[in-house]
Amino acid sequence: MERINSKQNQTIKEIKKLHTHKGRQKSGEYLIESWHLVQEAINYLNLNQVVTILATEDQYLAHGDDLSGENIIVISDEIAAELSDTSTTQGIFAVCKIEEQSFNVQKDSGAWLLLDNVQDPGNIGTMVRTADAAGFAGVIFGDGTSSEYNGKVLRAMQGSQFHLPVIRMNLKKAMEIFKAQHVKIYGTELNPDAINYQDVQPMDNFALIMGNEGNGMNKDLLKMTNDNLYIPIKGNAESLNVAIAAAVIMFRIKS
Amino acid sequence: MERINSKQNQTIKEIKKLHTHKGRQKSGEYLIESWHLVQEAINYLNLNQVVTILATEDQYLAHGDDLSGENIIVISDEIAAELSDTSTTQGIFAVCKIEEQSFNVQKDSGAWLLLDNVQDPGNIGTMVRTADAAGFAGVIFGDGTSSEYNGKVLRAMQGSQFHLPVIRMNLKKAMEIFKAQHVKIYGTELNPDAINYQDVQPMDNFALIMGNEGNGMNKDLLKMTNDNLYIPIKGNAESLNVAIAAAVIMFRIKS
Repeated sequence: MERINSKQNQTIKEIKKLHTHKGRQKSGEYLIESWHLVQEAINYLNLNQVVTILATEDQYLAHGDDLSGENIIVISDEIAAELSDTSTTQGIFAVCKIEEQSFNVQKDSGAWLLLDNVQDPGNIGTMVRTADAAGFAGVIFGDGTSSEYNGKVLRAMQGSQFHLPVIRMNLKKAMEIFKAQHVKIYGTELNPDAINYQDVQPMDNFALIMGNEGNGMNKDLLKMTNDNLYIPIKGNAESLNVAIAAAVIMFRIKS
Repeated sequence: MERINSKQNQTIKEIKKLHTHKGRQKSGEYLIESWHLVQEAINYLNLNQVVTILATEDQYLAHGDDLSGENIIVISDEIAAELSDTSTTQGIFAVCKIEEQSFNVQKDSGAWLLLDNVQDPGNIGTMVRTADAAGFAGVIFGDGTSSEYNGKVLRAMQGSQFHLPVIRMNLKKAMEIFKAQHVKIYGTELNPDAINYQDVQPMDNFALIMGNEGNGMNKDLLKMTNDNLYIPIKGNAESLNVAIAAAVIMFRIKS
């Protein structure tokens, strides 16, 4: 067990870089934070995918017994605050390896959520967590959708990225694969000419696309779908938050 | 039309205080931000409830025509940045009067969402917006639930607070009123012994209670309900975000 007390330590400096896209790309690693996520990583990832656990003295005392076999660095509270991107950190982190997940869709491979240019990290992470809870097979992050290794996305996913594949892929390409397998693809739009989501019979195998918060789905992708769904708005709200709309549809149409 | 260019101006200093609970209580006013919310306030509030509009030169040029009859102050970009609680402000604000909304439930008064000690401003605002879209009659903020005038709550509500009553009230007291009117009250809990929300027939008049993010609903309130609902989790997620759970249930059981 190593101990680091200086913020100037080179290892800590390198780990801090994992908050940026560039830093993650260079090292092929990313950083997760909180005991819940560290636990999920240990439970769901292969041993060699969890590179290092960083814990304050308090956290090491609390969880050390569950961390046998792990490469552990005990850090000062000051370093924990430095590594965290929250204002109140628990003081426990893990550096994990980025491993590309392959997209291998078969005809009966379940329900997939596709994110088209979704911006807000909280929305994105919440949608992955909700897809997990709704029994979806996986989530595909299309072009323009914020990084799955962004701190806020990781926090909102609450570990669901360890339960189901989260894949980054051009959505046009993904849709062509679904089409070749005769998997039905549903787009979503704020348009009463689309199909009321309540009129869709619950099913097991399909793809559902959610679009950008302000602009909705890409027009070219909308044309490639089998059908497009909308949620009727009863009150005076103009629209629903994208993660809310995704949840309402996912829980309704996934059998 | 007044013009203020100094951050030291007393009016600006007073308006800045509206970001705090104490400041709002003292003045009986609150601050909203963005053209969308200002528009909603103008459309839905009485004239005397919108006290002052603050707009940068750009925003005044863009929207001045829609603001005739309003008390307008043109402010510098620097003041706009100072008044905003976002990192990228549009530069338009309104100071509105706080007016207590009375809770007057009749037997057939629709569906009500009750928030029991919900903490996260984004979750709270999103639930009000979702209740609006699902055709709910109103939302009651119970003890411990973050302020309806908090900047993040206001932003997430997207103006829905102008479409339906948002009332602050002790939930035990509110439940007694619903009970006296024979309105059915549903609690929510993460407990498979509760009723699957899908087994509830859609209806018009009821109260639905959502609990705290970490601890769920208050145990005493859970005992006062007619029934308690849960959402079966199919994947490996431990739970749903509270705003997501609220949306799934609201859109399912409100006819």
